[in-house]
Amino acid sequence: MSLLTIGTVAFDTIETPFGKAERVIGGACTYISWSASYFTDNIHLVSVIGDDFPKNELKALEERGVNLEGLEIKSGEKSFFWAGRYHDNMNSRDTLVTELNVLADFNPVVPEAARSAKYIMLGNLTPAIQKQVLDQLDGSQKLIVLDTMNFWMDVALEELKEVIKRIDVLTINDEEARQLSGQHSLVKAAAVILEMGPKILIVKKGEHGALLFQGDEIFFAPALPLAEVCDPTGAGDTFAGGFIGYLAATDDLSVNNVKKAIIIGSAMASFCVEAFSLNRLKNLNSKEINDRIHKFKQLTHFEV
Amino acid sequence: MSLLTIGTVAFDTIETPFGKAERVIGGACTYISWSASYFTDNIHLVSVIGDDFPKNELKALEERGVNLEGLEIKSGEKSFFWAGRYHDNMNSRDTLVTELNVLADFNPVVPEAARSAKYIMLGNLTPAIQKQVLDQLDGSQKLIVLDTMNFWMDVALEELKEVIKRIDVLTINDEEARQLSGQHSLVKAAAVILEMGPKILIVKKGEHGALLFQGDEIFFAPALPLAEVCDPTGAGDTFAGGFIGYLAATDDLSVNNVKKAIIIGSAMASFCVEAFSLNRLKNLNSKEINDRIHKFKQLTHFEV
Repeated sequence: MSLLTIGTVAFDTIETPFGKAERVIGGACTYISWSASYFTDNIHLVSVIGDDFPKNELKALEERGVNLEGLEIKSGEKSFFWAGRYHDNMNSRDTLVTELNVLADFNPVVPEAARSAKYIMLGNLTPAIQKQVLDQLDGSQKLIVLDTMNFWMDVALEELKEVIKRIDVLTINDEEARQLSGQHSLVKAAAVILEMGPKILIVKKGEHGALLFQGDEIFFAPALPLAEVCDPTGAGDTFAGGFIGYLAATDDLSVNNVKKAIIIGSAMASFCVEAFSLNRLKNLNSKEINDRIHKFKQLTHFEV
Repeated sequence: MSLLTIGTVAFDTIETPFGKAERVIGGACTYISWSASYFTDNIHLVSVIGDDFPKNELKALEERGVNLEGLEIKSGEKSFFWAGRYHDNMNSRDTLVTELNVLADFNPVVPEAARSAKYIMLGNLTPAIQKQVLDQLDGSQKLIVLDTMNFWMDVALEELKEVIKRIDVLTINDEEARQLSGQHSLVKAAAVILEMGPKILIVKKGEHGALLFQGDEIFFAPALPLAEVCDPTGAGDTFAGGFIGYLAATDDLSVNNVKKAIIIGSAMASFCVEAFSLNRLKNLNSKEINDRIHKFKQLTHFEV
């Protein structure tokens, strides 16, 4: 099934206790698309870049089955740039620089062919832009997934709530679930958030795994304990890409398949953090991915 | 198989966002013994109390199959008392009062009949006392589990390391594993700690579950997401009691059975936090326990 991904395509400068990566390829939509591309090849990407973005990176995406018709290239302008520094525990980070550049007046145009995409991944952007995308869809969608962050809850809560009403799956982290719901218990937070519109809530807890709330069902996907986490940037987007890429490929929204999709998203995220930027994510094969998914299965498996 | 539990039997005053419980029954050994008693009834308890400790509480323990021959009652003295206040997130707490009382000069004497107990649970106490207990065992043990805390790593590290050399299973939390090993990554921390002597390391992560490290094997037991956590006091001890109680009952130390024991410990801990003190833990039946274990199984289960 066709998949539409929306989000940033950008440059990042990242400092972690393992080193520094300067002006490397980043952006939510880049991570989402690369991750999804291991499962499905009918991907439309909608984003905006300047003419400073390397052409070979775009070519590599196209070779993965990503259609770039919806990627606006603004001549004479610069791509979005973010710089951040991770703390020693890798769980928190400081933003050092945010240069919106082309993102400042981004008005996404969804190409005609992508308006009927059945699976939609709205990466983290302003709720206003996410709404603009929703307004261009033809209404035939099977699953719309939204990612957002605490910043939009602080500055654009009402707009965000309007968007949340219209989507099927919300992915946020535990602190954001608490902020959005006003509830400390994640069980209570999920009940409040599922009343806002989505059928499914996925709470990402980083190194502590992810929780799925769907009706009365709770599912827990662990994170793989790793000897070394090199760079957590993009892990959430990589998770989302694997999740929706697998669902688009299988076109099966049964509870069990959604659980499998979460494990697959978690497996993809576990690769992402092993290297800076997309360095690990660009060099995977299906055996490595299957072995990793098997490791996730083993991690919680016991005979009764 | 016979089980020997060592630790405090005490009074607690606990404040949580849900209320305050004054001078209620607490102590590591109390939680361990109650929890284990749902799986096995051949339990020897070694601890010390003053004559202020309620007789009906001791009778209740005896009715659960707990032999109190090793419980010293010091006439005219007071039982150990701890008071603490939990923060809003329930993950951290401040100690308000610690009155050692009878614990100040506790010299545990393991009764003759308990020296050949096959399963040993050394609850959190000074490493010196834990060593005294080990020295009285007859050497025929099948499994010795040790619980400890960061405080002993701060003030008695070398003594603690001597004790750790002599045990089979160490249970500590994630921050303690990092402190003991000097490694931030739990995978690396486990490798360092397993070199210190134990065959198995269990890292307790509270609301984020528990990790088992055994050789190259890693197993993850989730925590049950709960709508309300009333009082986390004793959850770690209840976990340990369920873990070793189940192993003592089944006398099966295969990797799979150890995993099951961790799930059972987690299930017991999930009951413990539902009420102050031992209020929930004292009123369980086997159907409730089996249903809860089933919930844990479901929480991570998916069909491949």
